[in-house]
Amino acid sequence: MKPRISMITLGVRHLAASVRFYEAGLGFPRMESPPEVAFFTLNGSWLALYDRHALAEDAAVSPEGTGFEGFTLSHNVASEAEVETIMRQALGAGATLAKAAQKTDWGGYAGYFKDPDGHLWEIAHNPHFWVGPRDEDAP
Amino acid sequence: MKPRISMITLGVRHLAASVRFYEAGLGFPRMESPPEVAFFTLNGSWLALYDRHALAEDAAVSPEGTGFEGFTLSHNVASEAEVETIMRQALGAGATLAKAAQKTDWGGYAGYFKDPDGHLWEIAHNPHFWVGPRDEDAP
Repeated sequence: MKPRISMITLGVRHLAASVRFYEAGLGFPRMESPPEVAFFTLNGSWLALYDRHALAEDAAVSPEGTGFEGFTLSHNVASEAEVETIMRQALGAGATLAKAAQKTDWGGYAGYFKDPDGHLWEIAHNPHFWVGPRDEDAP
Repeated sequence: MKPRISMITLGVRHLAASVRFYEAGLGFPRMESPPEVAFFTLNGSWLALYDRHALAEDAAVSPEGTGFEGFTLSHNVASEAEVETIMRQALGAGATLAKAAQKTDWGGYAGYFKDPDGHLWEIAHNPHFWVGPRDEDAP
């Protein structure tokens, strides 16, 4: 298996609202696609949004599920100030605060928000090393 | 916000077993790190493994949760045969079959397995377009 995650698909309850959150609210670039799914062509792994029940059905598992989903998505940035800026952007776009940005015990700075379906995003500054793909406009 | 997911962190119940699955079983490259966390430096978004309770605590949410987790990870490959090869590799490494690889209604070919904690992976061949990051050794 190649060392690669091609896409992360999030199950959502209201596709149009989630598309607005990620496209208009966070500014993610959306690819043209059939109306029942949304693909965001991110640097690195892509993000997809799909009806939660349809996603479970596609994987042949029960759609029933509650509480902590057992995963988080991280978005790393270059400074503490940028963490604050993006937390404000997300909350302004309709995200819910899970944990206000603050110093972490590993020497970084991070906060968490929940997207419209409760999926958890960490916005983090790691002063020790860069995590994941670089931006395409990075030097 | 930049169009980028830096890292996907999966909450796990038995870190050592999950590290074995992803490192020895699937062949993902592991970065040196403190013993309580594992980072896999994938092309595109990185993968991290962290104790499920500690992950929930870090995000300031309850660790309680059951059933469908509302997300899937996809690994796209260049052929139907490669889908079959990777499904066999994962099941041989201790994954559980969720859905045997088969033709999909969107004209592709895909199967799903569950990792040791039940996190869902789709192995997919999409003949219409390439999804996500290319391998570093790709032309």
